[in-house]
Amino acid sequence: MSPWSEKMLQLLLRMNNFHLPGSSLETCLRFVVAGVHVGWVTPNVASILARFPDVFWPHRDAVTLVAALDSADRRSGALGAVLEQLRDEDSLTCLRGWRNEKYAVMARYCDSPLMYMERAATSLFGVKRYGVHVNGYSRDVDGGLSMWLARRSNSKQTYPGKLDNLAAGGLAAGSSVKHTLLKECEEEACIPACLAEEARAVGTVSYTYEDEEGIFPECQFVFDLELPTDFRPQIGDGEVQDFYLYPSDKVREMLVSGEFKPNCAMVALDFLLRHSVIQPDSEPYYQEFVAGLHRPL
Amino acid sequence: MSPWSEKMLQLLLRMNNFHLPGSSLETCLRFVVAGVHVGWVTPNVASILARFPDVFWPHRDAVTLVAALDSADRRSGALGAVLEQLRDEDSLTCLRGWRNEKYAVMARYCDSPLMYMERAATSLFGVKRYGVHVNGYSRDVDGGLSMWLARRSNSKQTYPGKLDNLAAGGLAAGSSVKHTLLKECEEEACIPACLAEEARAVGTVSYTYEDEEGIFPECQFVFDLELPTDFRPQIGDGEVQDFYLYPSDKVREMLVSGEFKPNCAMVALDFLLRHSVIQPDSEPYYQEFVAGLHRPL
Repeated sequence: MSPWSEKMLQLLLRMNNFHLPGSSLETCLRFVVAGVHVGWVTPNVASILARFPDVFWPHRDAVTLVAALDSADRRSGALGAVLEQLRDEDSLTCLRGWRNEKYAVMARYCDSPLMYMERAATSLFGVKRYGVHVNGYSRDVDGGLSMWLARRSNSKQTYPGKLDNLAAGGLAAGSSVKHTLLKECEEEACIPACLAEEARAVGTVSYTYEDEEGIFPECQFVFDLELPTDFRPQIGDGEVQDFYLYPSDKVREMLVSGEFKPNCAMVALDFLLRHSVIQPDSEPYYQEFVAGLHRPL
Repeated sequence: MSPWSEKMLQLLLRMNNFHLPGSSLETCLRFVVAGVHVGWVTPNVASILARFPDVFWPHRDAVTLVAALDSADRRSGALGAVLEQLRDEDSLTCLRGWRNEKYAVMARYCDSPLMYMERAATSLFGVKRYGVHVNGYSRDVDGGLSMWLARRSNSKQTYPGKLDNLAAGGLAAGSSVKHTLLKECEEEACIPACLAEEARAVGTVSYTYEDEEGIFPECQFVFDLELPTDFRPQIGDGEVQDFYLYPSDKVREMLVSGEFKPNCAMVALDFLLRHSVIQPDSEPYYQEFVAGLHRPL
């Protein structure tokens, strides 16, 4: 087995480590809102939440919100106050990345939001997060593909200096996928809407990992955007420090170099699989790669 | 929620019913060859296999082959003799579909085969089956996509008269994915190799279902083949009775009509998702569809 294949498989396993034996899944409590299971809470986080009996009601294998919080607004307000206090105490590192950006909480993407939650806190409750990632690419004269990659700014809260897809961003509450796509293309890479509109929806990449900051069940809506060969993205809002156009074979090699933000490596791997850069007769883990990129949440 | 979305989701759940609560997974024994877990055996099948103690050794939660069968050839020969006898007894309906076609048995596609097994028997042991499916399509003058579909012959052993992808077939032991692709294109639809060579690998569709004939963990290697607008497939080996070229919106509607062989509906759904015919802002179950098409085996 090639070292590349093994490293790529390991990355996919790591990005789905919540499903591996020995993960915190075995000890987690379900996070239940209005009778609906929407996330996971570790025993450690549950013990912190137990300090707020006016808001949380731990019972059996679940943490729920008290019954008096009977609307999305009431739930969001009460949870927000708890999170502000925990942020002030500075005991939960993930809250240092406070964004002032609200994510909707629901069991499935198509469900009505049961409440809204500060983005930085979602990993404490293991609720699903949604985003948009854009594979920007150009077709070479010989038919080969080159991909645009972004290098994240060194001042980013998460994964500073790592390689990213051409544009990407989280889905804030109330924003459509299309709106987020156009917004991130414009803000991050100065791609005008008339060009970004050409991006084609090509599926999702979904996975669940855990680390010291919590549990991350994530679904990225993936778009392919073919760009003219003379097009160059420009640095927009400062979240990116540079852009590179690399041939697909070089991108393939770099996926396992540790240079990529891991979920962006997954999105680029999905691109290489869908565009036949990686083929079933030469890639031993072809099926494992495809399945590992699209796990149920 | 639209009836179409609900029906499509139900089809995906049915094609992954081995993972649903209440499936035979709860009572199945592992099928273990040379210390490797390669499949699943229901208690009913296990009791039949227990009649052959020279070949099978049931212990704890597993059915294994006796240690004396210490090579792929010996295992395949011994199992083959058992299957021939069971076939003569005519008590297992799946063996009525005997193909004289051997499938390789291994834990992962990239592993060396541990033994070979008659195709019709694989569902008794719940071993993984691999195949190739080809989405044939043409681009209309207005940029829209039309897909070629095949109607299976009324004399097919499985799913007679149902709609199928342009070409498809199982991966016999020792055959590469590419070889199987070219062979099925030629045999089923008279597509010459020079044209079939243009087919592009675009991923896999994988799922595990069970029915009265056993357990089916399957992985289909999927190819897209763009065809000239004046190309028409021709009936080849008689496995197909007719071909149709349908606009993508009509294909979408037909996926839930019951007219499709279910796994071919999955392959066509994957095509519609990858080609932006189905979009995330208008399809409520977009993420569930993508994940349901690519389940780990």
